[in-house]
Amino acid sequence: MARNIQSLERAAAMMRLLAGGERRLGLSDIASSLGLAKGTAHGILRTLQQEGFVEQDDASGRYQLGAELLRLGTTYLDVHELRARALVWTDDLARSSGESVYLGVLHQQGVLIVHHVFRPDDSRQVLEIGAMQPLHSTALGKVLSACDPVAHSEAVEADRKAFTDRTVCELDAFEHILDITRARGYAADVEETWEGVASISAPIHDRRRMPVGAVAITGAVERVVRDGELRPELIAAVRDCARAVSRDLGAGRF
Amino acid sequence: MARNIQSLERAAAMMRLLAGGERRLGLSDIASSLGLAKGTAHGILRTLQQEGFVEQDDASGRYQLGAELLRLGTTYLDVHELRARALVWTDDLARSSGESVYLGVLHQQGVLIVHHVFRPDDSRQVLEIGAMQPLHSTALGKVLSACDPVAHSEAVEADRKAFTDRTVCELDAFEHILDITRARGYAADVEETWEGVASISAPIHDRRRMPVGAVAITGAVERVVRDGELRPELIAAVRDCARAVSRDLGAGRF
Repeated sequence: MARNIQSLERAAAMMRLLAGGERRLGLSDIASSLGLAKGTAHGILRTLQQEGFVEQDDASGRYQLGAELLRLGTTYLDVHELRARALVWTDDLARSSGESVYLGVLHQQGVLIVHHVFRPDDSRQVLEIGAMQPLHSTALGKVLSACDPVAHSEAVEADRKAFTDRTVCELDAFEHILDITRARGYAADVEETWEGVASISAPIHDRRRMPVGAVAITGAVERVVRDGELRPELIAAVRDCARAVSRDLGAGRF
Repeated sequence: MARNIQSLERAAAMMRLLAGGERRLGLSDIASSLGLAKGTAHGILRTLQQEGFVEQDDASGRYQLGAELLRLGTTYLDVHELRARALVWTDDLARSSGESVYLGVLHQQGVLIVHHVFRPDDSRQVLEIGAMQPLHSTALGKVLSACDPVAHSEAVEADRKAFTDRTVCELDAFEHILDITRARGYAADVEETWEGVASISAPIHDRRRMPVGAVAITGAVERVVRDGELRPELIAAVRDCARAVSRDLGAGRF
């Protein structure tokens, strides 16, 4: 059986390091963070730079991630079947609900946003494609944790951080929410991740009935919640969208 | 001097291969395309898969690009100073011109789109962030080729393909257009890349007066051109935007 290739693992660790925290690091910082000799780190960085995965600032000599990652990451989106199937349905959901729509998939220890439809008004909004959301506090994350055993293990093992006073961090309480999510077929996040923001999410299944992602609407809590309850027409719209995408992916009608 | 690392170069070549053409490839195709033994190719693919750069389809066994590239590519955008400085100005340009706005930088043999503001109407539009545009036929590409010697060499050495009847492919004619671009301070593409589409672009400079990118508006030729001429108010708006971003990057006023 083939062994994994050490220089590749080290290169991946460098790119992860540059993706978090400081984001612009000198050679010494990178070498010491990864426990590598400077010469070893430099050889990897040089190759990454030549391939466009890393760029070096002329003035400071510090390294940061490179443009080739953006080009390749966009190509990843182009071949993403779930995303392609969901484009029209998520547009319709944003239009009918008047809220932002997100499509998320499990990636590492969180939810990776693979599609984002802006709220259909003229406000300035920040595109969240490629961003990560936590599994334990967001509606997308709870749906994936409830339906996908791999996501469940990640959420259980994770350090479930309290983002607001309402975040559910304690394991028994979190498992109870996942039970409710499975029973209902959808999940909500009412100010558990961001103050003032609520969202509703439902799971998307493929032809083998496997959970392959989730769709969510997100908006101001004042619009998503009415009289202390999630607005039922929004829950229905999100679940309709998830069912439509699942059907497009070949999931059965029942 | 450190040597480049062969396994990393091979891994990058694999990801480039998966980013073009078929986009889903079996082990044998990948190995033979890159002239590698199957065992060697498999070791690299296994490691890339473990790091999330490549995914393997369960059913077909074929490989495609992985989610980690999207996450890292988005982080690249987050640290992109030009993009951060341009966000507000490009929003204003889309609003005032009523057309789509693109921000592009030189990457490899083309223009990489690092920001895209949708045309402010309710039409369905496809996000082009991360897409590549050719240097010789687009307004962004001509501006970069005119101002940046590295882009110029790439454009001159490239196989300048005719996308429409109006594409300028012949070297002398292309160099003449670049001279005009330098003299005027902006470039246009009137149906030279896409039938029915016209765009206007101006260069962005940093504090060292280096060309670091270009901004463009793109729209239906019927709206961008009037009586056979580019609409002067659109040219002025694009150039104003490019100047504002340059100033924000520290470029001098003169």
